[in-house]
Amino acid sequence: MKSITLDDIQAMEKLVRVQFASSLPGVKPVCLVGTENEDGLSNLAPFSSVVHLGSNPALLGMVTRPDTVERHTLSNIIQSGHYTLNHLHRGILEQGHQCSARYPHGVSEFEATGLTEAREGPFVFVAESRFRMGLKLVDRLPIEANGTQLIIGAVQLVQVAEAALSENGSIDLPGLGLISSTALDTYFESVEMARLPYAKPKEM
Amino acid sequence: MKSITLDDIQAMEKLVRVQFASSLPGVKPVCLVGTENEDGLSNLAPFSSVVHLGSNPALLGMVTRPDTVERHTLSNIIQSGHYTLNHLHRGILEQGHQCSARYPHGVSEFEATGLTEAREGPFVFVAESRFRMGLKLVDRLPIEANGTQLIIGAVQLVQVAEAALSENGSIDLPGLGLISSTALDTYFESVEMARLPYAKPKEM
Repeated sequence: MKSITLDDIQAMEKLVRVQFASSLPGVKPVCLVGTENEDGLSNLAPFSSVVHLGSNPALLGMVTRPDTVERHTLSNIIQSGHYTLNHLHRGILEQGHQCSARYPHGVSEFEATGLTEAREGPFVFVAESRFRMGLKLVDRLPIEANGTQLIIGAVQLVQVAEAALSENGSIDLPGLGLISSTALDTYFESVEMARLPYAKPKEM
Repeated sequence: MKSITLDDIQAMEKLVRVQFASSLPGVKPVCLVGTENEDGLSNLAPFSSVVHLGSNPALLGMVTRPDTVERHTLSNIIQSGHYTLNHLHRGILEQGHQCSARYPHGVSEFEATGLTEAREGPFVFVAESRFRMGLKLVDRLPIEANGTQLIIGAVQLVQVAEAALSENGSIDLPGLGLISSTALDTYFESVEMARLPYAKPKEM
């Protein structure tokens, strides 16, 4: 095992440190966040910081930084109060990744990448996604330690390929071809390896 | 595509809703969080809500609920100010899962599951993990929407199998056999499918 200390991390070149630090959580989910601005112009940006906050109500969090391509996403969420999360699959991976490019103001990532808008009420979904959800902004928590924010949304609507949803509430993520990522350059498919029963204390 | 509305979600039986809602983020990383209480008794609990908050300093967040087995973890983190995240691999998956059982006060999950403590300064690591990190508590943000908390930690020390770390800072997560999960009962291995260059605007 190699030990990397705090001093080692701080001595890393910036891009090396970003690559390293963003790999620490492991294999992360990645979604395209869909929004629209006050003129109705749509926006898509990949986020790999989506986290489950609770089930009743169903709440999801994600972390945003104001100084990146995510700035349009954040201002749109604040203005409209709504956003969507659209999971990727192999067929739209390259278009999804391309949404991380810094397009000029006035250009929609849908138009730039060829992904298709599917609008439903206040929500701008990616039509090609097989698993997507619409959320209402509930709260924004400033993270003082580094100036980021935790965006908290309540799930209002979920759309998923019908065959993937089981009666027990579980969703067949590998069957949907869902993609996960690390460091926003490397993408993975998942292979189910085990389903384990609810754990109870036992003699080992 | 099947649409599931807010009313549908609220009408679900509790366990169905938990299964459903915790699947929404997609394939999530899962770690064992290692802590000790003021008597030095160690504790391990699986968390699948670890998220990258920033790279400089390297900050990770995780969401904790006070009403579950995680309550020991939370009180230990508050008391000691330190904790570890230990990634799982196939060889320790069942022991890791078993750490979610509600052991009585006074029983260490290390002892109960046969995992081995590796102590280093204030950190209680899982010796069998191939990728683990020690963190210092930086902040706790109450999430008023549902009474959970975001625990924010600064990475102090990372230990990783030497062959998995590249000079560019990337970490070979599939090579480490890292496991991800959904709904805390289904576990996945990851297969790398693409590594894409930094995206720039282009004609499509």
